[in-house]
Amino acid sequence: MGEQILKEELFEKVTSLAERRGFFWQSARTLYSDAPAGYWVYGPLGTLLKRKITDIWRKEIVFKEGALEIETPLTLPIKVFKASGHLEHFFDKLTECRKCHTRFRVDKLIEEQCGVKENLEGMSDEDLMRILIEKGVRCPRCRASNWTEIKHFNLMFTLQVGADAIEPNAALRPETTQGSVVEFRKTYMVSRGKLPFILAQVGRVFRNEISPRRALIRMREFQQLEIHIFFDPDNTSDYDRKLKPLLNYKLRFLRKEDRETGKISEITAREALESGYTVNSLITYWLVIYQKFFNEVIGIPAERLRYRELIEGEKAHYALVHWDLEVYTEDLGWVELVNNAYRTDHDLSGHQKVSGVDLSVDVGGRKLMPHLYEPSIGLDRVVYHVLALSYREDVKRVWLALPRHLAPIEVAVFPLLSKDELIFRAKQIRDLLKSEGFHVFYDEKGSIGRRYRRMDEVGTPACVTVDYQTLSDGTVTLRDRDTMNQVRLRLEELPRALRRFLSGASLEELVE
Amino acid sequence: MGEQILKEELFEKVTSLAERRGFFWQSARTLYSDAPAGYWVYGPLGTLLKRKITDIWRKEIVFKEGALEIETPLTLPIKVFKASGHLEHFFDKLTECRKCHTRFRVDKLIEEQCGVKENLEGMSDEDLMRILIEKGVRCPRCRASNWTEIKHFNLMFTLQVGADAIEPNAALRPETTQGSVVEFRKTYMVSRGKLPFILAQVGRVFRNEISPRRALIRMREFQQLEIHIFFDPDNTSDYDRKLKPLLNYKLRFLRKEDRETGKISEITAREALESGYTVNSLITYWLVIYQKFFNEVIGIPAERLRYRELIEGEKAHYALVHWDLEVYTEDLGWVELVNNAYRTDHDLSGHQKVSGVDLSVDVGGRKLMPHLYEPSIGLDRVVYHVLALSYREDVKRVWLALPRHLAPIEVAVFPLLSKDELIFRAKQIRDLLKSEGFHVFYDEKGSIGRRYRRMDEVGTPACVTVDYQTLSDGTVTLRDRDTMNQVRLRLEELPRALRRFLSGASLEELVE
Repeated sequence: MGEQILKEELFEKVTSLAERRGFFWQSARTLYSDAPAGYWVYGPLGTLLKRKITDIWRKEIVFKEGALEIETPLTLPIKVFKASGHLEHFFDKLTECRKCHTRFRVDKLIEEQCGVKENLEGMSDEDLMRILIEKGVRCPRCRASNWTEIKHFNLMFTLQVGADAIEPNAALRPETTQGSVVEFRKTYMVSRGKLPFILAQVGRVFRNEISPRRALIRMREFQQLEIHIFFDPDNTSDYDRKLKPLLNYKLRFLRKEDRETGKISEITAREALESGYTVNSLITYWLVIYQKFFNEVIGIPAERLRYRELIEGEKAHYALVHWDLEVYTEDLGWVELVNNAYRTDHDLSGHQKVSGVDLSVDVGGRKLMPHLYEPSIGLDRVVYHVLALSYREDVKRVWLALPRHLAPIEVAVFPLLSKDELIFRAKQIRDLLKSEGFHVFYDEKGSIGRRYRRMDEVGTPACVTVDYQTLSDGTVTLRDRDTMNQVRLRLEELPRALRRFLSGASLEELVE
Repeated sequence: MGEQILKEELFEKVTSLAERRGFFWQSARTLYSDAPAGYWVYGPLGTLLKRKITDIWRKEIVFKEGALEIETPLTLPIKVFKASGHLEHFFDKLTECRKCHTRFRVDKLIEEQCGVKENLEGMSDEDLMRILIEKGVRCPRCRASNWTEIKHFNLMFTLQVGADAIEPNAALRPETTQGSVVEFRKTYMVSRGKLPFILAQVGRVFRNEISPRRALIRMREFQQLEIHIFFDPDNTSDYDRKLKPLLNYKLRFLRKEDRETGKISEITAREALESGYTVNSLITYWLVIYQKFFNEVIGIPAERLRYRELIEGEKAHYALVHWDLEVYTEDLGWVELVNNAYRTDHDLSGHQKVSGVDLSVDVGGRKLMPHLYEPSIGLDRVVYHVLALSYREDVKRVWLALPRHLAPIEVAVFPLLSKDELIFRAKQIRDLLKSEGFHVFYDEKGSIGRRYRRMDEVGTPACVTVDYQTLSDGTVTLRDRDTMNQVRLRLEELPRALRRFLSGASLEELVE
């Protein structure tokens, strides 16, 4: 793949392919050109890909780590966000052009026109206003440079629930976390829980972003895969044991003191823990397994992953320590995939205060307010990056080198030619593979080369072709998306061979 | 199970068990007693049960019927609901007590105080007002009988998206359908579709119900499993073929002329089709497979299922023909599980009119506006009824006779006594079964009888117990939840035996 493509055009190419082939596209725009931005549809292939990622996370993280998955509503009482601090702290800073009355995010205006990037999030309103004036920042729409006072625009959508409501009494959640925190006590009791107590949630969240952009990267409605670990900060001995076999694993950090140079420090889990940098064995363990998950299971090369340490002003209002697990692509640069926040007892204590309900638990004879550590995956960003990092092209074709176990269509079945006897046999084989549980796509339209390329473009790992030899000796060809090589297999062997191939075996191994 | 229980207490018993054991409970009430009603949490067991139902629907319906699953956002532009008719027609009728200013649904007031039930939905505001006055209907709160004019209260939650919005420009969807309709054209193109073209959606919907009630039965935020079949009303020949082997299947209808008597007509698919009652072979086929699905896969006895034909005033504003697939329990009576609506071209034509975009497709040389048939499952109601119909109790115990393939915990593993050597071996067996993909629960606390009863209460089909004989000869006992019988099995046979047991084999068959 040419370096040129990666650097400048990858995002365009991936989103164009995604729309053309049904991975994702912008919601409602086919009919309503003024539909609000930041809402995206997953088409048939995108829905399958997203579900595969979710399922593999459930299997490798939720199930293996003994997390209990729950589902709390997307709508929560407004008091919940008073307690969590979101009403007070979850806002963007806006200014309005006095001439054309368009509103903009202050940090984006300054970033785009002054090239300043660092530390804007931690800056006071007065300092930001001073920059707007001193640098003569202009309205991107009408070019005036006359700005209103800075306002705080809360990013939550509020709702009036019930016929008697006269003001907002609920909000759409901006994170799944508050649901787990509010239901922690109940879930802990009904599950006869003990610490560490791990909940998981999968679901939609809503943020009234001022400038949604970059397709699945900044949306107004998106999906999280969250783990909520409630634990005793004075006793993480379970995790001492769990971390032991992983102590030599190398974590990749961008430490706050290396911001300027961008130097990534590879630090073993042991060093990270012993130096105090990663706080305790529990947090260290989870940093390890998330890096491993994205590298080994989702297939992102290690050199494209790093934990960026957040500094004051950048950290969420609830976080004591906070790393973003980021992924690198040449055109978008480093983008956050997982928000890893040590929230301490911020949330439970906030709810105890507002609700008056005792939320502490008994731990070996003393009362304790559990602490919360939370790795939170932005699922849509994972989908985008899995596609972007799989994108390949050469002079002959475009293909997605998706990890085989993530491919939405697992196998295509083609009759070599559009002849009745081949079509009949090919459809039988399609039905056989479907009954074995494979995601199969059948196609008889166009030349065989064109059909292969259509499958390459959506990352289908294997194509099975039925030809005249099939009718005589019961063999079919199996073609590998990446090498374009083919082998002949007997039909009886096909389901098992396919399963092995999708788990990573090479064509050569199949015919050994 | 005593008749008494079923008649009067089942709902209370089921919701109490659900809360006690972590299937479902009301959201946020543990901390905030004034949290809005109609929002429910799925706990660990409820989340597993709900996912099993969803997965089996995906396997048996979406996958087998060749539907393409997509995911559209929960937020849609307000214009979408102008086009669909929801802005105009999707409301409840309200009146307010002039004395205490509480608002009520007019139909509920009349139903509760006058016993009138039928035809209220089709009645004019004037006629409803006349009943309120003539019957002297009183305010349930303050006993006054002085009502304001009837108002139409739209059930959609609207949102202001973006920092520039000065009025609502979007709404939370009250059904997943509009997403599929708005994206029909695009999905049809990217999938190289032909009619009939079948989409599927799984997801949350929102309705600002005035009186949410009966736990999972009437919620403000709930989940649908929807199928959207776009088809040519003049050509359903594909379905003539598909229906053929099912022509003798007996559909159960409550026809509109039998409302008074409640007589259910068992009619074969052939009769239903040939008499014109079920319109065409496509609709007939889907009525058959949904009745079959709920009966044979979800395990609801046929005599507890019926299709209730809706009449003018009851039908949704978009429906030409409309049946509710209902389920019967002794205490709640008949409750709708699936809304089966023949929406004709109402939705596509509405969007074509509002958007100005041509939404017809080419069919054999002519332009056609596809028709839409939609079976829409209310997933939460299915969860409730699966639990309610499984509820059993006798003098010794309470148990859930869940269909084994739906049970959230598939197998429990116990050491017979709390001895180190038994605990060690039992934990090994737990890990073995986990690695084989089973949902396993391990418990060593309390007497063995008590542990069995805890599992019975959540419907766990099988309990494996490790005793001293296990240590000497490598066998364990497997206990059947329903019969409480046990067999001894060799450990090597256990995973396969368990799989067979969960698929329906009896204990006797396992040891043959």
